[in-house]
Amino acid sequence: MTNITAKNEFRLQLIPDDDLVLRLGRLRKLMADDGMDSMLVGDNANKFYLTGRIFDGFIYLTPDGRTVYLVRRPSDLRGDGVLYIHKPENILDVLAQAGIPAPKHPGLELSLTAYAVIQRLAKALHVTNFVNADPTLMQARAVKTPVEIDMIARCGVKHVFTYREIPHLYREGMSDIELQIEIERATRLQGGMGQLRVTGNDMEINMGSVLAGPNADTPSPYDFALGGAGASPALPIGANGTILRPDMAVMVDTNGDFNGYMTDMTRTYSIGTLPDDVLAAHRLSVSICDTLQNMARPGAACRDLYNAAMDMVNKAGLDKSFMGHRSQAAFVGHGVGITINELPVIAPRSRDILQAGNVIAIEPKFVMSPYGAVGIENTYVVTADGPARCLTPAPVQILDLSE
Amino acid sequence: MTNITAKNEFRLQLIPDDDLVLRLGRLRKLMADDGMDSMLVGDNANKFYLTGRIFDGFIYLTPDGRTVYLVRRPSDLRGDGVLYIHKPENILDVLAQAGIPAPKHPGLELSLTAYAVIQRLAKALHVTNFVNADPTLMQARAVKTPVEIDMIARCGVKHVFTYREIPHLYREGMSDIELQIEIERATRLQGGMGQLRVTGNDMEINMGSVLAGPNADTPSPYDFALGGAGASPALPIGANGTILRPDMAVMVDTNGDFNGYMTDMTRTYSIGTLPDDVLAAHRLSVSICDTLQNMARPGAACRDLYNAAMDMVNKAGLDKSFMGHRSQAAFVGHGVGITINELPVIAPRSRDILQAGNVIAIEPKFVMSPYGAVGIENTYVVTADGPARCLTPAPVQILDLSE
Repeated sequence: MTNITAKNEFRLQLIPDDDLVLRLGRLRKLMADDGMDSMLVGDNANKFYLTGRIFDGFIYLTPDGRTVYLVRRPSDLRGDGVLYIHKPENILDVLAQAGIPAPKHPGLELSLTAYAVIQRLAKALHVTNFVNADPTLMQARAVKTPVEIDMIARCGVKHVFTYREIPHLYREGMSDIELQIEIERATRLQGGMGQLRVTGNDMEINMGSVLAGPNADTPSPYDFALGGAGASPALPIGANGTILRPDMAVMVDTNGDFNGYMTDMTRTYSIGTLPDDVLAAHRLSVSICDTLQNMARPGAACRDLYNAAMDMVNKAGLDKSFMGHRSQAAFVGHGVGITINELPVIAPRSRDILQAGNVIAIEPKFVMSPYGAVGIENTYVVTADGPARCLTPAPVQILDLSE
Repeated sequence: MTNITAKNEFRLQLIPDDDLVLRLGRLRKLMADDGMDSMLVGDNANKFYLTGRIFDGFIYLTPDGRTVYLVRRPSDLRGDGVLYIHKPENILDVLAQAGIPAPKHPGLELSLTAYAVIQRLAKALHVTNFVNADPTLMQARAVKTPVEIDMIARCGVKHVFTYREIPHLYREGMSDIELQIEIERATRLQGGMGQLRVTGNDMEINMGSVLAGPNADTPSPYDFALGGAGASPALPIGANGTILRPDMAVMVDTNGDFNGYMTDMTRTYSIGTLPDDVLAAHRLSVSICDTLQNMARPGAACRDLYNAAMDMVNKAGLDKSFMGHRSQAAFVGHGVGITINELPVIAPRSRDILQAGNVIAIEPKFVMSPYGAVGIENTYVVTADGPARCLTPAPVQILDLSE
C-alpha cells in the first residue's frame, strides 16, 4: 500500500493505490536509467504526484527498494512507509532505524530547490555526489496515468461549465478586471482551488487572465503566451482596468484547477462585431488547433507541430501578430497537469516526441491591434491511436457578449 | 534617477525616486557590512522592493557604484541603468561594455534561488566565491521606508473596508468555502491583486483562510498559524466545505494585497452566541494584541513579546488551545510587507530586536473545539516613540453573522 491518509479524513484518497503504484514504478524505471541509486522528492507538485496529497517533508525512494515518506507536518498522517522527521538532519538516522540503505548517489530536485536547501540536504545526507532529479520527474509526469487523465478530464468538464457562465457574467460598462473577478468567483464556485501551481518560482498570475482591446499588446515580464499590463507594476500581467467597449475582442484564458489537476483553456468574446480580418485570425486559430490535434499522435515531434502551425500562420500573412505583436512568444503549446507548465513543449527547438498519455494545451493566439487578442486554447490528451482527444470541448466561435 | 518605467504607461511609478534611493542606500550599507563586493538580485519580491516593479532579469549593485537593471523582459523598459540581456551568460559582457567592474565576491539569493540556477549564474559570472544575500535583503526589507509604511497603511484601509462587507456576504446555510469565495471577490473588487506573495516555495494558500467549527483544529502541512483540512488533499489548508451552523465560530484570516504591499488581519464571527469560555479566549486575544502593541517599541526583543503573550495565555490556563490544539504553531507574529512572512519573527527563539519601521502582524489565536477558532490579528508599524500603530483598525468584537 502506498497511500497516505490523514486521521479523521474518512480515508479520503484522491488517487487509488494501484495508480500510485504505476507512478512509482514509472519513476523507478526512469531513475535506474538515469543512474540514481535513490531520489529525495520535496517539491509540492512532485509529492502530490507520488502520493495524491501535500505534506511537509520528503519522499525517499530507491529503484528497487520500498518508498518511505519522511513527514514533518501535518502531525496526523498514517500509512505504510510513513516516518516522522523534525528536520533534514534526522533523515539518515530515521532511514537507518527502518533498515533502509543510505543514499550514495541520490537524485535531488536541483532546478526546483533553493541552493541553501540543497547544501543543507547534501550535508545531512553526507553526499557530495548528487544529480538533478527534475528532468527525470518531469519525464515521469509528462506521461499521465489513466487516473490522471480522468482527473484532468473531470477538470475539463468543470472548466467548460465555468466558461458557459461567462456571457451571463458580463454587464455593460464593466472593466476587464471586473469581468475577471466574476470568472474567478464562478471558477471557485465550481470547485476550483484558486491556487495555480507553476513549475519554478518566477511565474505569477491569479487564476488566469482577461485581455481586452489594446492591452492585449502590452509586453509582460512573464513567460506566458500573451502579456497585458496588469492592474499595477506590482503584478504586470493580464487585465489592466480597460472598460469593455464596442469593437473590442475579449480573450479569457483561465485555468481550471480542480483537486490538484488542471486544464488550460482560452475562448474569445467580443463586444459587438469585429472586423473580418480579426475574425479570420480567430478562425485560423481554430484551424491550427484542429490540425495540431490531428497531428498529435505518439511519435510525432513537437517541433513539427510548431512548424505546421507556423506554416499556416505564414501562409495567412499573420506572422507579425502570432503569439503577440510587440513581444512574441516562441511556443504554441505546453504540457499541463499538476502544474501549468509541464512537458512536452510545442516550440521550434523542442526535442520532445509525443507519447500516448501526454496532456498538452495548444494555444495559437493572435494580437490584432487595436481590437485585442483572438484565438482559442484547448487541452488535449494524446491517445494510443487516432487524433488527440479534446478535454475542453466548449464552443469555439467568438461570442458577442453585448447580445 | 533609479526608477524604471515602461513605455505607454503614463510613466506610472508606484514608488517615488527618493524612496527607492533610500532603499538602495540602506542595502548598500548592509552589503558592505556583510562583506559583499556586489549583489545580484533576481527574486521578484526583492526586485519589486528595489524598483517598484516586476521584470524578468536581475538588479546588479555594488556598495559604492551605480545600480544597473539587467532586463530580459518586458521588451519596453527604459530608464537610467537599464541594460538588456538575453541570458545570464551575457551579464559579464554587458557589465564590461557599461564600464562596470565584474563581481568577485558577490551576494546571491541562495535561499530563494534554485540550486541549478545559482550554479549557472556562478559559472556565467566566473565566481566561485559567493555568499548568501538573502539575510541582508531580508534585514533591509524588515525596516520599511516612509513610502512603504504609507503603501501598507493604504492597504490596511482597503483591507478594513473589505472586512466591513463580511456581515453582508453571509447567507444562512452557506459553507465556509462559499463565504470565503465572496470575501475573495470583495477583496479583488477593492483592488486586491489576488496573488499572495510568500517568501520561499513551500507555502501555498489562496488569498487567506476561513475556518469554521471543528475544521479549525485540523492539522495542516503548511507553516501558517492555524490549519484546516482545505477543500481537498491537493491543497490542505483552510475551509473544507463546513456548513456554517449555530454555535460555530468563524475565523476570517485573509490578506489585503494592494499594489504589491500587504496587511494581514483576522477577525472572528459567530453564528449565534458562543459559550462564555470561548468568548473569554477571544477577549484574551484582544488583550494580548493590546499588550504587545504597547510593548512593540524600538529595542524590544521579539522573544519578550512572545513570552509576554505566553504568560497571559498560561495565566488563563489556555496554553493547550493557543495557536492550535492538535497541532500548535510556535510563534505569535511575523513581519509583513511585500511577502506575508518577512522579518522580524515573534517567536520563543527569535533573536530579532524591534526597530522603528518594522511592520508586524500579531495573531494570538485559540482553537476552542468544537466551536472553532477565535481571536484577532492586526498589522502594526513600530514607531520611533510610543506604542506601535495599528494599520488594520477594524472592530475587534465577535460579530454574530446570523443577526
